[in-house]
Amino acid sequence: MNLEIFGVPGIGEVKAGDDVADLILAALPRPLQDADIVVVTHKIVSKAEGSVLAASTDEARKAIVEAESAGIIRRRGQLIISITRHGFICANAGVDRSNVEPGNVVLLPRDPDASAHRIRHRLERATGTLLGVIITDTFGRPWRRGLTDVAIGISGLPALIDYRGTSDTFGSVLEVTEVAAVDEIAAAADLVMGKATGTPVAVVRGLNLRGEGRAIDLVRPPDEDLFR
Amino acid sequence: MNLEIFGVPGIGEVKAGDDVADLILAALPRPLQDADIVVVTHKIVSKAEGSVLAASTDEARKAIVEAESAGIIRRRGQLIISITRHGFICANAGVDRSNVEPGNVVLLPRDPDASAHRIRHRLERATGTLLGVIITDTFGRPWRRGLTDVAIGISGLPALIDYRGTSDTFGSVLEVTEVAAVDEIAAAADLVMGKATGTPVAVVRGLNLRGEGRAIDLVRPPDEDLFR
Repeated sequence: MNLEIFGVPGIGEVKAGDDVADLILAALPRPLQDADIVVVTHKIVSKAEGSVLAASTDEARKAIVEAESAGIIRRRGQLIISITRHGFICANAGVDRSNVEPGNVVLLPRDPDASAHRIRHRLERATGTLLGVIITDTFGRPWRRGLTDVAIGISGLPALIDYRGTSDTFGSVLEVTEVAAVDEIAAAADLVMGKATGTPVAVVRGLNLRGEGRAIDLVRPPDEDLFR
Repeated sequence: MNLEIFGVPGIGEVKAGDDVADLILAALPRPLQDADIVVVTHKIVSKAEGSVLAASTDEARKAIVEAESAGIIRRRGQLIISITRHGFICANAGVDRSNVEPGNVVLLPRDPDASAHRIRHRLERATGTLLGVIITDTFGRPWRRGLTDVAIGISGLPALIDYRGTSDTFGSVLEVTEVAAVDEIAAAADLVMGKATGTPVAVVRGLNLRGEGRAIDLVRPPDEDLFR
């Protein structure tokens, strides 16, 4: 299987009320095809949806982080690891002040799966294709240094690929049971987006995944979680 | 930036003493180019290096997991989350019984960075190119369901990409400081490998990363780790 990933640069600064799908359509370097997966950093979605707040002091930012948190897992210095209102566990409830006008912070989209659905349906209607859409954020990992992009909103895709019962090359049942393919796609797309390069969208071509998962299915339920 | 990822299928079953670089060279569907990153699942490396043990009972497997662990972080039922002798934190110290002859288990390579170096140098010499090599394993994540592939051995690549001091599109310093690009590459490569498809190697083309990192640099030191 071959995979191709290309960035969609030149989208420019996104304002409240902008239509993210229209911005993508105008900036696409080549036409979308069936089964393409359009990966969108949440920041442009949040900005288009108006999920931006003024917060120029550490105090104000901390108040917003706490308001966006349904629970706090750990604190160390300025760092808060919290459960967002959606259920995601991440630093500072996803509240971020990079790539936004100084003095403001960007929140996570209120309902990232719904945002992904809207973008997908507009892109599909405009192009006559069947697509997947992933909305991403950049999360840390408890035991590993460095950040990676993960899926916080999905549409048209399964949250997990279930290999339970699949046999390996020896005919034994696989121990690996569920693969978080949408997180792997988010990570792959980040490789062409970078962090400061003004490329908030990428297209992953060559996978053939269809499903109707929800991003929250990627969150380990508290009773399975040994590390909350 | 465009990225291309292709699998290297047809390597077949790997035996102790096999030369992984030779197997890759014989199976490559197209020639390697400068800056290609060759991603290799650790299982074929471990098999070639003879890191396979007989263990047909749960008891025997548990003894091996404990022998491979430098420390245990959590236990629940059959599941042990341990620190491997290299320092990685993962389930069952990386001891795995899938894709190996029934009755056996595969360990992690003894020194995955050294294995990556050897493969890289042989591939570079044979092809006259400058390459990166990543050896991967499939790890779980504490708070997120589903597994993703990560880098456990690297050669010719930086462990982390450091954005500290880089400015965003507004001229503000980025909050995101370090990106685990090699883990993102490992995850991307897994998308073309699958878990049971006999494609243990993939080539990632289009990135331009050079460095001399070590995979252990990806492990969060205990004093920075809030979740051990």
